[in-house]
This record gives sequence, structure tokens and C-alpha cells, in this order.
Amino acid sequence: MAERNYNVDNLKQLQLEINKMNPVDIADRLEVLPEKSVAIWIKLLNKDLLADTFTELKPENKDRVLKILSEENIKDLVKELDEDELVDTLQELPANMVKKLMTRHIDSDRREIINALLGYPEESVGSIMTVNFLSVKSTETPAAAMKKVMESDLDAEKLEQIWVTDESLVLTGFVFIADLIRNKKATIESITQQITAAVSPTDDQEVVAKLSIRYDLGEVPVIDSEGRLIGIVPAEDVIDVVHEELQEDFANITGISDQAESYLDESSLKIAKNRTTWLVICLITATMTGFIIQRYESLLAKAVVLTAYIPMLMDSGGNAGSQASTTIMTQLFSGNLTAKDFIKVIFKEMKVGTLVSLVLVVINFLRILIVDNVNLAVNLTVSLTLFLTIVISNIVGGLLPLVADKLNIDPTVMAGPLITTIVDTGVLLIYFEVASLLLGL
Amino acid sequence: MAERNYNVDNLKQLQLEINKMNPVDIADRLEVLPEKSVAIWIKLLNKDLLADTFTELKPENKDRVLKILSEENIKDLVKELDEDELVDTLQELPANMVKKLMTRHIDSDRREIINALLGYPEESVGSIMTVNFLSVKSTETPAAAMKKVMESDLDAEKLEQIWVTDESLVLTGFVFIADLIRNKKATIESITQQITAAVSPTDDQEVVAKLSIRYDLGEVPVIDSEGRLIGIVPAEDVIDVVHEELQEDFANITGISDQAESYLDESSLKIAKNRTTWLVICLITATMTGFIIQRYESLLAKAVVLTAYIPMLMDSGGNAGSQASTTIMTQLFSGNLTAKDFIKVIFKEMKVGTLVSLVLVVINFLRILIVDNVNLAVNLTVSLTLFLTIVISNIVGGLLPLVADKLNIDPTVMAGPLITTIVDTGVLLIYFEVASLLLGL
Repeated sequence: MAERNYNVDNLKQLQLEINKMNPVDIADRLEVLPEKSVAIWIKLLNKDLLADTFTELKPENKDRVLKILSEENIKDLVKELDEDELVDTLQELPANMVKKLMTRHIDSDRREIINALLGYPEESVGSIMTVNFLSVKSTETPAAAMKKVMESDLDAEKLEQIWVTDESLVLTGFVFIADLIRNKKATIESITQQITAAVSPTDDQEVVAKLSIRYDLGEVPVIDSEGRLIGIVPAEDVIDVVHEELQEDFANITGISDQAESYLDESSLKIAKNRTTWLVICLITATMTGFIIQRYESLLAKAVVLTAYIPMLMDSGGNAGSQASTTIMTQLFSGNLTAKDFIKVIFKEMKVGTLVSLVLVVINFLRILIVDNVNLAVNLTVSLTLFLTIVISNIVGGLLPLVADKLNIDPTVMAGPLITTIVDTGVLLIYFEVASLLLGL
Repeated sequence: MAERNYNVDNLKQLQLEINKMNPVDIADRLEVLPEKSVAIWIKLLNKDLLADTFTELKPENKDRVLKILSEENIKDLVKELDEDELVDTLQELPANMVKKLMTRHIDSDRREIINALLGYPEESVGSIMTVNFLSVKSTETPAAAMKKVMESDLDAEKLEQIWVTDESLVLTGFVFIADLIRNKKATIESITQQITAAVSPTDDQEVVAKLSIRYDLGEVPVIDSEGRLIGIVPAEDVIDVVHEELQEDFANITGISDQAESYLDESSLKIAKNRTTWLVICLITATMTGFIIQRYESLLAKAVVLTAYIPMLMDSGGNAGSQASTTIMTQLFSGNLTAKDFIKVIFKEMKVGTLVSLVLVVINFLRILIVDNVNLAVNLTVSLTLFLTIVISNIVGGLLPLVADKLNIDPTVMAGPLITTIVDTGVLLIYFEVASLLLGL
């Protein structure tokens, strides 16, 4: 595509091409195109495609695009955007632009809805739900419902499910349009599908992720405390939420406090900030290991050879512990396990840990015997320590996420640094005590 | 609910209650109920609810339920199940049961489709797609399409989108039913929505996850090499795939080879097996650190105090490395980064690493100065090693996932053990070399 020199012909060609593109791809291009081309592109875009593209832009580019657009264009754009999209946009724009949009381009009806949505905390259901849905009363006829569909100006993708309420607007179920068409003479009630799960606008979005994974949900209805339908989390957003929540867990486990969506665009300082706290905590807790080693310094001085096995023992314990904790964390997330199962988890990890450590101890014992030039007592010291380390690490790794869950702390946040500290200090204490005993030091 | 003593009244009550339950919850109950109650429950369930529940059962219970059901009931059940659900079931059942179902209960038309689906590898798109969809030709009228919907015996949830093909059945787009209703006089072509992305049945299911995250897709169409529509991955399954793929990545990072869906039901031996390989690899690579320490044993004997800082240095390096690798892995998964960006990643991690390590070095220097009774040269040795460790760990952690991606290896599989080995050996080499230099040992 020519981007530098525009004439009528290639502009027409460009218009044809970009209006066939996906808004996500257009937004990607707009992020890197020079200012002048951005201005041309957004003028060539159809109204609805411009709106779809706009919602995909990064905050600074939203601001830039709004400055390029005429008042008339902004009015059209705002009209095309759903309330929840407007809310996302408003949260990202500078205050003066927000004020301009709110007072000049958003009429009072919408302003009220938007202000309500703006009131929900970040990552809550309220902050991601859409308020654009169609509902009918269960006493209406399929024909009346069909008429509502025909007269609705909602996007067709918002009309896949028609929500059903009773007279007091309490959600009772939903109907598929296909069933309306196929059962024109039935009652709405007879074709209403049951609601598997509904959420509250103040719930954390993680609730939506967990419910939709457990029950294979597509759209998730949002109800107020009286059971009245107030919004919907569409399937595409549920996918996003599942992705976001699991990414967040990933970041948590390695102690990244606030992972940016785009790594390359984020400043190094910000990235460093998000990583440092956890590293400092680990650094400080690691001094525990230093103290232990210092306490046993005279023992170590007599048998420096023991030092050679410290990294292997710590790594093995750490790895075994994170395997156990990862397993339990993912099981908690999927709802296959609860804090109540903790006795079962202890026994399971004890058995698994014993099996695993027997294999490791045999391999390690043979390796030391064949390769290392150390006496049997040292080999036995290392082997016994390795055995105890793996079993204990498994149990600790398995229990920590359950304890966190019980205390209402996100298991992924708590597990990482604690496992390292507990396992590291545990390993060293066991090692030196076993050594004192077996080596007579 | 009474489960032990059944009479006509409480059976009726039970029937009412369980037929209001969600199939996922019913399946959960059936897993724990005694045999006799299971038999009663499945007889009380409506046909379609029984089918939905059946697909949610664990393999051994599917087999059990099939043994309880009469031939007649099995025929009904098989009729209710979609081809893709049947395929899932057949893959889980013992051979004799598979043979029985295939020959007695599945007619030849379906057998052909099922055999085709059974041919796709595990975790491929073909193995998760549904072949139950409705398509119309772009030359048909909305009225003709509506007629097809009315006559279709597909579940209504499969009719949210009607797929549009050309005369040679090549996929060209889709229409929403709502748009058919609202545009009775238009042409199908004018209300057809563009396809953002389509996948091939031989693609890995991860492709579906990545596309749907990037483009906010609901349903994803599956096409053959000629572009003809052959299946659909529904939105609920996309959510499952995103969840599964991210869970798999979680497990990979900590070296769990084949995480079971249900931890408590899986045998300890199987769990131990899935964890051991990686631990053995790490155990063996950890011997590298042993060799290094043994090589520098005489140096360590002269300054045992150095040993006290080995765990802290190794932990810090490992933590910094996994922060960097986690960041890059999640960015690769979201498509925000590709292997081509590796120069950018090196510089970014160098900058981030420098910033992070400066903070850590200052804190650590002061801590040693105030708390530990060691001389300045030792403190400087530890500080310099810590600085270099963090910077190098960041760069290595950032690059490894990109290298893996370039080599078409799953970054999550490769990164874990390699980072540990590289960082651990690197830290020790740097430490002892710096010590030789600064302490004159």
C-alpha cells in the first residue's frame, strides 16, 4: 500500500483495502504509521469500522485520533460506541478530553449509565459488562419477542440470546432466537433455557472466568441484589478474562506486580519497578540461609566438600515445591479442589514426594559414588537430606496455596517467595543436622 | 435429598430436583454417589440432560453408566450426543465398549464422520471441532435461510451464527439470525459478516486460543485446504482451550509433563511419574554447580564465609531470570512479541536488569555492612557478583523463550531447566572469579 503519495486513485484503492481489514489489524497499523497517514486512514474508514478500530487503540493513540477528528466525526464515533466501550475509553483519556466528550458528545441518558459503570472498581464484573442486551417478559409471546428483535437497533451479535425476566424484571432464563423462530406458537416459558450461573457487578472478574470454565458458559448474565438483570459479560470478553486472569497468575508466581500489556512499549523503569519488590523480598528472606550457613561455618570449614551439594539440594527442593504448588494452584483455579481437601493433599503429596525422591536419591547416590571422590558418609548425608528435602518440599508446596486460599489471599501471590524461603532454610537445616549426625562433626 | 430409601413420592421429588440441576453438577454428584443411587439418578434424568451429564463424566464412570443403561437407553443417548462428543467418549472407553457402540448403536453415516474425527491427533483443532453447523449459499435469500433454520434439528445454541459459502462450498462469511430477521428483503451477501480468522483441522488447538485472544473471536470456523467449511470451534470450547493451553504452560514451566485434570483422582504413581523426569534433568544439570564448587574448593576453604552468600546469589539470579522469561513467554503467547524482536529484548532486559540490580546491590551492600561481620572486600565481591548475576539472568531469561520459539520448541518446556542451569553455573563462575580477583585468593 502506498502511504507517502496519495492521489485519488490510490486513495480509493486504499479505502477499499483498509475497509476489508480487521479492526485489530488496522489498530496495529495505526500505532506505527506516521501522523499524516493516520489522519488519512481514519478518514477513509467506515463509521462502524472506525469505532471498532478506535476501541482497539492504545490510550495515547485514542487521544491522538480524537484530536484529528472533527466535532461531527466525534459525535458519530461516540454514537457507534457502546456504553462499556465508552467507559473503557474515558478511563484512558486525559481529564480535559473526558470532560469534552461527556459534556458535548454524550447525551444525558447515556451519561447516567456511564457514570454508574465508571463507579465499579477495576477488574470487577461491572467494569467489563455490557448494558446492551435485549430482554422479554416470560409472559410475552414468541411473536412479540420477534418483533422486539426486529425493532432492536443492537448489533446482531448482542442478539444471539434474548434474556427472559418475570414481571418484576428478575432474570428467569434466556431464549435463543433460533428457538423463537422454530416455536412461533409456543409460550416463551416453554422454550426458556435455564440460567446456569449469574454474577454480581461487584464480583471480581475472576469469578466469571472460573464459572465459565466449570460450566462451559458462553455469555454470563449480571444481576443486582434483587436478581434483576443489569448487564451481560459476552463470550468474547469471557475469553479475554480467562486469558487475563491466567496471565496475571503467571506474573504473580514470579513476582511481577503489574505486568504491562505491551512489553516493548512500556518504559524500562516501570518494568523494573514491577519486578523489584519481589526480588527485594526474596533477597531479604534469603539472608536466612546466610545466617544458617554462618551458624554452621565451623562444620563447613571441616568438610568443605559439603558445599558442593548445597546448590543441587536447594534447586531440587525448590523445583519439587513449585511442582506441587503449581498443581494445587491450577486445581484451585479450575474448582477441582478446595481448602477443605487439605488432609487429602498432605497424604497425596507425601506419597508422591516419597516416590519421586526415591528415584532421585538412587540416581544421585550412584552418580556421587561413580563420579565424585567423596566418602560414603558424605554420600549418605547428601542422600538422606535429598530424600527429606523432596518429601517436605512437596508437602509445603501443596499446602501453601490451600492456606493462602483459606486466608483469602491469592495463592499465586503468596506461594512463590514463601516456598523459596521455607524450602531453602529447611534444606540447609536438615543438611547440617544430618551431617553433624552422620559425619560426627 | 433422600438417597437411601426411595418411594414413589420422594422419587418424584428427586426427579423434579435433579432435572433442574446443571449437568456439570449432576456429573459431580454421580462421581461420589453409591452405585445403586447412580442407577436411579440416570433413570430419572430427561434424555437430553442425561446426554449432557454423560459428556461431563469421567471415563470410568462413562463406562459404568453405559453398563447400567438398557440397549434402548443407550440408543437414545447416542442419538442425543453430537459427533464430536461421541468421539471424545469413544476415545475414553475400553475397546470392547467402543466396538459395541460403533457396531450396534451408531449408524453408518455417523460412523464415517466419527472415523474421520478420530483420525485427528490429540489437541488438534480437528479433535475439538463440532461438525454440527448450518450453512447457506451466498446466493440464497434470507427467507430461504430462515426456512433452513426452522427445519434444522440442531440445538439452538449451534444456530447463533449461520455460515455462508459460495457455490463450491468455500466459506465466505457468516450471518447472525437476528440480521436475517431484520433484513428479510436484503440479499444474504449484504448482511454477511466477514470472517476474521479460520483454522485448519490439523492446526494445534493453541492456534485457536491465540487467534481468539488477538481478535476477540467467539466461534472459530475450521476449513480444509480448499477453503471449504468443515467444522466449527464454538465459543465455550475456545474458552476451554485458552484455559487448557495456559494451564499446560503453567505445568510446563515447573516441568510437569502431563498434568491430570483431576489431581485427587489420579494415582500418586502417575503424578510422581509426570514430575520425575524434569527433576532428574535438573538434578543432573545441577551437578555442573557441584563441579564448579569442587574446582574452587581450595579457594572456598580459605574463605568459608563466601559460602554463606551462594544461596542468596543463586536465588536472586533464578528469580530475575524467571521474571524475564515469564514476561517474554506471556508476550509471545499474546502475539505482542515475535522472535524477530530479539535485539529489542536484549536491550530492554539489559536496561531493566541494570535498574533492578542497582536497587538490590545497594540494599544488599548495606545489609552486609550493618549485619554481617565480614570485611569490605567480601562485601564488594558479593555486590559485584549480584550485579552481574541479575543483569545476565535478565538477558538469558528474556532470550531463551525467543530462541525456543525460533526453534519451534514450546518456550515453556525449554525455558525452565535451561534457565536454572545457565544461571546457577554462571553465578558460581562469576562469584569465584570475582573473589579470586578482589580477595587475591
